[in-house]
Amino acid sequence: MGQSSDNKLKIFNDPVYGFINIPDGSVFDIIETPFFQRLRHIRQLGMSHLVYPGALHTRFHHAMGAMYLMGQAIEILRFKGYEISEDDALAVTQAILLHDIGHGPFSHALEHSLVKGVTHEELSGLFMQRLHQTMPHSLENAIRIFKGTHPCKPLHQLVSSQLDMDRLDYLNRDSFFTGVSEGVISWDRIIKMLNISDDTLVIDAKGIYSIEKFIIARRLMYWQVYLHKTVVAAESMLTNILRRARQLAMAGETLPASAALSRFLYHDYRLHNFLNDASLLEDFSLLDDYDIYAAIKSWVVHEDKLLAYLCRSLVHRKLFRVHMQNEAFDHNQLSHIKSRAKEVFGFISDSELDYLVIEGKSSNSAYDPGASGIMILSRDGRLNDIATASDQLNINVLSSPVEKFVLCYPKELT
Amino acid sequence: MGQSSDNKLKIFNDPVYGFINIPDGSVFDIIETPFFQRLRHIRQLGMSHLVYPGALHTRFHHAMGAMYLMGQAIEILRFKGYEISEDDALAVTQAILLHDIGHGPFSHALEHSLVKGVTHEELSGLFMQRLHQTMPHSLENAIRIFKGTHPCKPLHQLVSSQLDMDRLDYLNRDSFFTGVSEGVISWDRIIKMLNISDDTLVIDAKGIYSIEKFIIARRLMYWQVYLHKTVVAAESMLTNILRRARQLAMAGETLPASAALSRFLYHDYRLHNFLNDASLLEDFSLLDDYDIYAAIKSWVVHEDKLLAYLCRSLVHRKLFRVHMQNEAFDHNQLSHIKSRAKEVFGFISDSELDYLVIEGKSSNSAYDPGASGIMILSRDGRLNDIATASDQLNINVLSSPVEKFVLCYPKELT
Amino acid sequence: MGQSSDNKLKIFNDPVYGFINIPDGSVFDIIETPFFQRLRHIRQLGMSHLVYPGALHTRFHHAMGAMYLMGQAIEILRFKGYEISEDDALAVTQAILLHDIGHGPFSHALEHSLVKGVTHEELSGLFMQRLHQTMPHSLENAIRIFKGTHPCKPLHQLVSSQLDMDRLDYLNRDSFFTGVSEGVISWDRIIKMLNISDDTLVIDAKGIYSIEKFIIARRLMYWQVYLHKTVVAAESMLTNILRRARQLAMAGETLPASAALSRFLYHDYRLHNFLNDASLLEDFSLLDDYDIYAAIKSWVVHEDKLLAYLCRSLVHRKLFRVHMQNEAFDHNQLSHIKSRAKEVFGFISDSELDYLVIEGKSSNSAYDPGASGIMILSRDGRLNDIATASDQLNINVLSSPVEKFVLCYPKELT
Amino acid sequence: MGQSSDNKLKIFNDPVYGFINIPDGSVFDIIETPFFQRLRHIRQLGMSHLVYPGALHTRFHHAMGAMYLMGQAIEILRFKGYEISEDDALAVTQAILLHDIGHGPFSHALEHSLVKGVTHEELSGLFMQRLHQTMPHSLENAIRIFKGTHPCKPLHQLVSSQLDMDRLDYLNRDSFFTGVSEGVISWDRIIKMLNISDDTLVIDAKGIYSIEKFIIARRLMYWQVYLHKTVVAAESMLTNILRRARQLAMAGETLPASAALSRFLYHDYRLHNFLNDASLLEDFSLLDDYDIYAAIKSWVVHEDKLLAYLCRSLVHRKLFRVHMQNEAFDHNQLSHIKSRAKEVFGFISDSELDYLVIEGKSSNSAYDPGASGIMILSRDGRLNDIATASDQLNINVLSSPVEKFVLCYPKELT
Repeated sequence: MGQSSDNKLKIFNDPVYGFINIPDGSVFDIIETPFFQRLRHIRQLGMSHLVYPGALHTRFHHAMGAMYLMGQAIEILRFKGYEISEDDALAVTQAILLHDIGHGPFSHALEHSLVKGVTHEELSGLFMQRLHQTMPHSLENAIRIFKGTHPCKPLHQLVSSQLDMDRLDYLNRDSFFTGVSEGVISWDRIIKMLNISDDTLVIDAKGIYSIEKFIIARRLMYWQVYLHKTVVAAESMLTNILRRARQLAMAGETLPASAALSRFLYHDYRLHNFLNDASLLEDFSLLDDYDIYAAIKSWVVHEDKLLAYLCRSLVHRKLFRVHMQNEAFDHNQLSHIKSRAKEVFGFISDSELDYLVIEGKSSNSAYDPGASGIMILSRDGRLNDIATASDQLNINVLSSPVEKFVLCYPKELT
Repeated sequence: MGQSSDNKLKIFNDPVYGFINIPDGSVFDIIETPFFQRLRHIRQLGMSHLVYPGALHTRFHHAMGAMYLMGQAIEILRFKGYEISEDDALAVTQAILLHDIGHGPFSHALEHSLVKGVTHEELSGLFMQRLHQTMPHSLENAIRIFKGTHPCKPLHQLVSSQLDMDRLDYLNRDSFFTGVSEGVISWDRIIKMLNISDDTLVIDAKGIYSIEKFIIARRLMYWQVYLHKTVVAAESMLTNILRRARQLAMAGETLPASAALSRFLYHDYRLHNFLNDASLLEDFSLLDDYDIYAAIKSWVVHEDKLLAYLCRSLVHRKLFRVHMQNEAFDHNQLSHIKSRAKEVFGFISDSELDYLVIEGKSSNSAYDPGASGIMILSRDGRLNDIATASDQLNINVLSSPVEKFVLCYPKELT
Repeated sequence: MGQSSDNKLKIFNDPVYGFINIPDGSVFDIIETPFFQRLRHIRQLGMSHLVYPGALHTRFHHAMGAMYLMGQAIEILRFKGYEISEDDALAVTQAILLHDIGHGPFSHALEHSLVKGVTHEELSGLFMQRLHQTMPHSLENAIRIFKGTHPCKPLHQLVSSQLDMDRLDYLNRDSFFTGVSEGVISWDRIIKMLNISDDTLVIDAKGIYSIEKFIIARRLMYWQVYLHKTVVAAESMLTNILRRARQLAMAGETLPASAALSRFLYHDYRLHNFLNDASLLEDFSLLDDYDIYAAIKSWVVHEDKLLAYLCRSLVHRKLFRVHMQNEAFDHNQLSHIKSRAKEVFGFISDSELDYLVIEGKSSNSAYDPGASGIMILSRDGRLNDIATASDQLNINVLSSPVEKFVLCYPKELT
Repeated sequence: MGQSSDNKLKIFNDPVYGFINIPDGSVFDIIETPFFQRLRHIRQLGMSHLVYPGALHTRFHHAMGAMYLMGQAIEILRFKGYEISEDDALAVTQAILLHDIGHGPFSHALEHSLVKGVTHEELSGLFMQRLHQTMPHSLENAIRIFKGTHPCKPLHQLVSSQLDMDRLDYLNRDSFFTGVSEGVISWDRIIKMLNISDDTLVIDAKGIYSIEKFIIARRLMYWQVYLHKTVVAAESMLTNILRRARQLAMAGETLPASAALSRFLYHDYRLHNFLNDASLLEDFSLLDDYDIYAAIKSWVVHEDKLLAYLCRSLVHRKLFRVHMQNEAFDHNQLSHIKSRAKEVFGFISDSELDYLVIEGKSSNSAYDPGASGIMILSRDGRLNDIATASDQLNINVLSSPVEKFVLCYPKELT
């Protein structure tokens, strides 16, 4: 562990769990890298703070929290007699700490806007590889766990599955900072019920109610927070601001922006660019919420009327009206709104209408049964998917994905 | 309000809600009566503290908490423009405060054991009547609200319905003191969503998720606390101890007990006895958990071997084994256990076997749709039962009563 | 660990800490003994529930909580490189679990009333000795830690010092159940700051504010809870009821009481009696709050008017008026009240006056500096008493014992 | 209240208090203005999130919270019989909502850096005046309360005094989001103890312990959060970055920055400028944390080596070392560090040394007795300053301002 050994005892205050220890010097060193520190400036919940003013927490805090839960999970699994070597414990801790390091500004809200076709998981993988190459500590094992190529499957499941430490922490944390008590889960009980059977991470039968509650809480958080109408409106506007800005950039217009943001506005990068040009990941790592929001503030007076309108609306919180419904929107209704838009916004061409009348879909399933479902370990040793183990609650209903059609447009149009 | 006006400002510390004000001098006077003070010695959750050591809270505290919630509910309904007169506000407050005053020792656990065929609601009615007669304050209006004969139906529903202040408080309180976070409900949001429509207490559409969560939490509390196996075992033993004691009493045996308890052991009272003999309610009001448990402790050395065995087992926490299952127990299995019982407990006659091999049923439904269901008020003013308003969650599954067959017997028999 | 090894995983819900694991089969076996189970029926805070209705928590729950904190403390000390053997870890856990097992009914309120001149610590020692003799597990090491004869001083300090796990738990727990948030302490931070230096349990310099807060919280709890006027009144009445009952018993009067309570009412036992007669500890172990309160309820109609009056006043919560002041009460004032008492209570002789006009003293010091003070470990390795280490707060003021003169008498006398 | 009346029922989730109602349409309209919305982007605690990752909460949230507490305070004062007209209740609510609207980026951290000699209170006054002129609602009364010229002194004290709703909320909120439980105060009890006597906002005698705790908590928060070494380091760096940037700007250097920030970098405005040029307040209102931090990120590669070094150190969290002590720093020690600085940073001139070796002072007093002290209302109606009313705690010690000398410099210099 070398010179950083006295940092082992470093403690973070966390309003969610009380205190978080840094379990190891190498982990501390990862946290200190600029790659990781940038997560301090990337909000976990994008624009949700417009509805829930407390929801300002960041990917940094979430990663620390997930690391804390991993420590608890390792302890309980060892307590139940499952051997986890020191090396594996360290690797799975590094893996969970880094699982989200690939997130860009505003987390999911701008995924696919700045860099098309590259998921944040792929970017996390690239960052982990880079850290592995540049730090004195090997991350090989952590990367294998993250990617699911490590021979011990439950370690991967602790990092990425329907019951991973990521989900447990984000439900806890999002519920805590939004103040939406409907999202409260019994994370400590769930972790106490973790077990391993048949080379799979499972839940002891006594934990079945906690899992039901966890699935329901997740669903409630979707509708009450993640897909809250106002949040959807704000994030649609944000996405379309970036889309418009890139369109202008590609057309050669001048757009005030930070150097790093400019690079991504004026070029259309794909995964292979990251693999061929090491500087690209470096520049991506300079981006955070500040680049985006500061640019948007400056574009409020941009000469492109459409961009300026969108930015002004977002900054002054004149958010679009949102409709969400189970069926596709009626064609006539859409036509009507669009012709209203052309009336009200005379400067808009037909091809630009979809910046103002924004159609989309949102969907979620609280639980996906099947190959990677949550398995309940009965007292007699059998494993059952929670969807069948729960004889009371209709998990099947919960687990069908709910898809809603979304339509956003300026309130002036109504 | 007379002389007790300075008590208006009296404040109780409540770990659940922070502080509880006594809203009125007449309410304070009710709280000070011996009838109400006895609730300090009647545990809300019977024997559940054997599983959840924190669950020692009493009917007294619950009644205070429900009163607090009533104050919040009145405030929000007035805020929404519904006029509630000062008199009605006071009466509904008195009604909720007194709704459980008829509970006897160990609350539900001994209901129907000491006084057969008389529910605690009937006893509450008798106590309210007596207070009305003996106090300077009229309780007439409160009694009408309690009994559902008051013209304003929503007032009754605040006291007694599937969404009354009673349920909200007991879920809050039981969850808090047991430490079972699965039972946490968003009571403050639910109360903020209360409304009145069509002369019915309803919930605004925005509160639909909170109601789903409330119903689910209630179900989880049933299985995790109220019908927890160990609790069921202890309460079955308690019931059978009282049953045996009465049997011995009726047969003329001597049983150490307090004077009040003796009266109920040596006589078999029905509702009409309470109506004909005012002293009976007085004596009932002297009974609390202390009479029962102190008697049981003294019966540990009773010469009736069966009674002594049952008492010893309960006091030393050698609780019976419990099986709960969806189907009736197999006849052969029962026969086997019973013959084992006769072997092990040589002093037992055939007719006494059911003191040791105890069969029963427990059932609950988290929600009852229908005439008195929870109605959701949509934005367009229509009312829908939560069972149909909730398109995601299968409330119908939740609302079918779940019935389990229960079997308890001494661990020595396995 | 033998046959009870599967109990290792037994988990208690605790609303204060979430979950408490039983760390070891031998610990589980201790918890299952009748000696320990009786603590379920002894309230931690005597009669405080009359003021704080939530304060019904028991010595059982407190002992479990202190055990939980001990587990945390052992972990942090090991983490900081201090070696604690498995045997010592188990012994210190047993010691804290059993540190209060000698408490009698109503905890401190009746200490010295039932058994004069024998402290609860001495009784705890006797119980530990008895368990050591009768259980298959040796408690020798635990007893040495408890008594301070174990060579490792910090282990004793974890069990009994100004910063022991006992105090940390009771402040947490009493604050939680009373709802007095003034008593909240940062127990997790305090434990994280524990260290060992110079063979002494100490606090790292960074923890100095938490210790200041801990001392202040303790003082606040004294005045707001432990020495709350109404509590003092109720406990004075309780003590005097027992004193009167014993006086009557010694004079040959008949007093309904449980067999165990009778033995202690009709005899005056001292420490040597416990050493000479093993059955005495057995009988003491049968006593809990139920014996006392059930007896008091039955004495409400005792023919001794004084006893009946005192019992009636307590049961019906007609509590005495209390005055607390810094100076001794004025002789004339006392004379006046006493002559009023003789007027109002004609049946009282002069020698019985002190049952109704009760004088006393209460004192507390939030902190005792000196030989066993709380030592702060500065970064350069020096140790300082918190009283000098805290340059801001006047710990010296806090640490002078505050003594108040107390006077209680029936409200009829004013 | 006009057209916005349906917003009366708008509810914000607040993790600290549960829910916050908007009490009135005019209040809602104020919240919707861009002036107020900008507070969403100004962190309450400047750079404290570098130490406490949860401390990302904003002035927006704090203002909402203080408004919530004001509602509670009005209710309790009315309950105690003090008449507060609807108009005054609205005005004091508006006043507390707007009390901090003059804060600039990073709250206190940059006060006096961007605009010298103008306090945030003065700016709040200017904003309130502007809103009064531009909104349909009069704010005249609110402004008088804010400035202390309203005839009812207690209303001003609710907004600005040692016991105002501002302090209560920020202690609650800062403690909550940092996770520093030492800062927890019993705000609900304090508010319940508010009273008015002698035309002054006072505390009932029963609240004395809560006030002691409040003062102590405030002191602890100073040392543990507000003046935490790492926070002091980061904020010193931030201040010096702005100072350097202005120096360069004044010297005609080019500095990438938003338009609004540029105006304040390239000019030296005083209070009279705000009074003479309405556009200045408009431009100030465009500034938030994003302008500053985005600029700092872009200055990381500025050609001025000193500015670039400072920015790089802050962005990459290579924070300066901090010493805090009671005495002034030794002249020799300072000389030594400064000559080290010249060695290590060859590009630094003598006059620039104080950008790297930063001297300062920090001070706080937890409580100021005297003319505007917290007055305790004894039962007999007398008023005493808490400093004398508290006979136990040495408030005099707490109330002497604690001054510490501060020295920050790059870690490379040691």
